[in-house]
Amino acid sequence: MSTVTIDNVTDVVIAAMGQHGDVTPRNREILTALIRHIHDFSREVKLQHSEFLYACDFLARAGQLCDDKRQEFILLGDIIGLEVLVDMLTHHAEAGASESTVLGPFYRENPPVLPKGASIVQMHFDNEESIYFEGFVRDTAGNPIEGVLVDVWEDAPNGLYENHDPNQPDYNLRGRLQTDENGHYAFRAVRPVAYPIPDDHTAGELIRAMGHHPMRPSHMHFMLQRDGYRRLISQVFDSRDEYLENDSVFAVKESLIGQYHPAAAELGVDLHIKFDFVLANAA
Amino acid sequence: MSTVTIDNVTDVVIAAMGQHGDVTPRNREILTALIRHIHDFSREVKLQHSEFLYACDFLARAGQLCDDKRQEFILLGDIIGLEVLVDMLTHHAEAGASESTVLGPFYRENPPVLPKGASIVQMHFDNEESIYFEGFVRDTAGNPIEGVLVDVWEDAPNGLYENHDPNQPDYNLRGRLQTDENGHYAFRAVRPVAYPIPDDHTAGELIRAMGHHPMRPSHMHFMLQRDGYRRLISQVFDSRDEYLENDSVFAVKESLIGQYHPAAAELGVDLHIKFDFVLANAA
Repeated sequence: MSTVTIDNVTDVVIAAMGQHGDVTPRNREILTALIRHIHDFSREVKLQHSEFLYACDFLARAGQLCDDKRQEFILLGDIIGLEVLVDMLTHHAEAGASESTVLGPFYRENPPVLPKGASIVQMHFDNEESIYFEGFVRDTAGNPIEGVLVDVWEDAPNGLYENHDPNQPDYNLRGRLQTDENGHYAFRAVRPVAYPIPDDHTAGELIRAMGHHPMRPSHMHFMLQRDGYRRLISQVFDSRDEYLENDSVFAVKESLIGQYHPAAAELGVDLHIKFDFVLANAA
Repeated sequence: MSTVTIDNVTDVVIAAMGQHGDVTPRNREILTALIRHIHDFSREVKLQHSEFLYACDFLARAGQLCDDKRQEFILLGDIIGLEVLVDMLTHHAEAGASESTVLGPFYRENPPVLPKGASIVQMHFDNEESIYFEGFVRDTAGNPIEGVLVDVWEDAPNGLYENHDPNQPDYNLRGRLQTDENGHYAFRAVRPVAYPIPDDHTAGELIRAMGHHPMRPSHMHFMLQRDGYRRLISQVFDSRDEYLENDSVFAVKESLIGQYHPAAAELGVDLHIKFDFVLANAA
């Protein structure tokens, strides 16, 4: 019989695939590369058994934090720049279309459906700056797209998303609206603030091990979709944020930076921001 | 400001390490290699965002199976041959010493302390084959080692470890005993049987995705320790087992195969096995 060794074990494991059942081509491709990279990583750093057990315990603790309001593994993937990489691999920018960036761990499905110009604010904070956020959605030929579902979400002026803050109403600062016949969308909100990603548990343990910080620059999340177009998941960053250059999840792109300006009196808010999107045609 | 791209994101993440806190040299070594391999893996297979989210959900489900009796991540590491590799990287065999193999996910601390020759069996099964398991523990110069703590554990004739089987008594088929002045150990047990590793949840999902099977060849687990010697974690396999050549966790080594023979009448058991160990001196 053959004995596994440090040098042959990777080939032995990969050769075992498909020996006792079917493997889809995509599973074979992914698992072969995954096994090879995890083994190579372990050999490179001479991973010790105590470190393997630490990692197993770390992953178990991360898993136990997960529920319908928290997905710790997305957060861990964000901290090592994995989600932003995967996003770019998935949504390779089409010429002329808006850039995407990470979904992040805070999205919730089925937010309130609102008319154009409505407010997503359900609760007020002393330090809030009210905003009017508007823009146009066009196709890559420059034509307006009517009926785009614009799904937005943001943190509150205390730096927390409502699903991580028991004091905020359900779905506070989340909403869905549609573009009008001119491709125009608009909503009222509060200026999002820079905030630390949840660093109380395993995410913080990883951030500290990396010698990094947990802060994200202020951003408004967008998910835009309409039949016939590629869905766009993106964020609009605040040009004046101090963390633009060192986002804890590496998700900032220059084309996604917007400017807040003092609002005209008739808008009845503190600040005004205009940001346009371009959707690629569906493949 | 600089925009991350598919090509520069790995360097950007690695360069951020240590910018906002201290990083130990070992953390820097491990995390740099880990980030580089995970990113390279993702680029190689063009990992899609939906696949990233599937992986996050898979890991969350695995984490939620973990408790003081089940460590799903060790099992997942076993299935991809990671634990056996890490074991070899940690316990690189010293010339003349016994080979180690994986601890596995079923070890429990503080099993009953028993006198030499005692039985670890607390419950009987119709299909059991009773065994007398004995041998000598020596140093690499061939001298017997007295007072070695010999920790043993095995599955029951139904293929289940007691901590995964509500019908077995606590600590059934687990025990600790010591070698005598001749370096001799002995205990009574049942012949371990081949069994499937728990494949009801995420471990099974991974095994099926790999087109592999969950069976492990019959084995008795050993952990041997005494001050002044390197701790040995190993397993003794059954020479007649049909899964010796395709262990689901890739942990079999030729030097760890033992033979069960019919026992002499005075032993009062069905089968007799002798297996000697050699411990390396502590570093």
